[in-house]
Amino acid sequence: MKTIGIVATSLDGYITKHDSEGATFTSEADQKYFREVLKTFDCSVVGATTFEASKDAILKWSYDGRLRVIWTRNPEKYAQYQQESSLEFSSNSLKSILENLQQRDKRHCAILGGTSVYTECLQQGLMDELWLTLEPLVFGSGKKLAEGILDVGLELVSLEHLSKDTILLKYKHPAS
Amino acid sequence: MKTIGIVATSLDGYITKHDSEGATFTSEADQKYFREVLKTFDCSVVGATTFEASKDAILKWSYDGRLRVIWTRNPEKYAQYQQESSLEFSSNSLKSILENLQQRDKRHCAILGGTSVYTECLQQGLMDELWLTLEPLVFGSGKKLAEGILDVGLELVSLEHLSKDTILLKYKHPAS
Repeated sequence: MKTIGIVATSLDGYITKHDSEGATFTSEADQKYFREVLKTFDCSVVGATTFEASKDAILKWSYDGRLRVIWTRNPEKYAQYQQESSLEFSSNSLKSILENLQQRDKRHCAILGGTSVYTECLQQGLMDELWLTLEPLVFGSGKKLAEGILDVGLELVSLEHLSKDTILLKYKHPAS
Repeated sequence: MKTIGIVATSLDGYITKHDSEGATFTSEADQKYFREVLKTFDCSVVGATTFEASKDAILKWSYDGRLRVIWTRNPEKYAQYQQESSLEFSSNSLKSILENLQQRDKRHCAILGGTSVYTECLQQGLMDELWLTLEPLVFGSGKKLAEGILDVGLELVSLEHLSKDTILLKYKHPAS
């Protein structure tokens, strides 16, 4: 299974604008790309904070054969939303969540954040690629792509314009 | 006078790796580009912390007609290094430092950081362009490109590879 981190950031590396939850700042071009690209994945992993921020949108999705796994310390808190094979909640390690997805014959997993999920995946080498949308914005504060003492080196695979000012950079982990 | 911010960052927006001062993490390709590009400027502005981190390198430069202005709260602390028209120390506002450079017939000013200098210039619209080298690295911590509550939107002017994995993005301020 290929595991791919998908993220949009400001030029100074923020995945949220100041204290707003969710990627409220992304351009129309990125939103369009994001909707389309998600269709190419058969599963995704999302942290609980990101889930809370996008809950309405996530719950509105009708079943489309894609499995979303929400990573949370308290799966029982979300028991009402649990739908086997569609929307699952797990407190297992990201590594074992990903292993489980692979065992269930998933082929393309999108890692959708937020900070803790990206950080763990980068630190533990669980992310084969990172697809980063770079918006031409500077925020000075917000939630960061990653947190802690990391020293991760990636390789640039491709770059393309999503619009005049917004670019999409695809990086891969050297070991992948 | 054109005022251009020059900076190298990690993918998560850091201008230093963790607690190391200075851009110790930059690739050979960026270092080469940085040396060459500096020759195209007739003056530069550097914050005191960045000056301290690069003092040996800056003091080693022989006079080449280029004026470096170090922005510091305590110019008197550096009186021993002051060399009129070559290395000057000022506690004036960045706006008045830049106005003064323009009055002295300077044409291209490089804004070389660190965080406070980039932040002030971005916040006050003092930077016509931002030339950003993006290294394929994730650090999780370090000094940030900018700090505070900013909401700056730029326009992408060009992008090029400095090497296979390192890219140079040039942005301009919409008003410039």
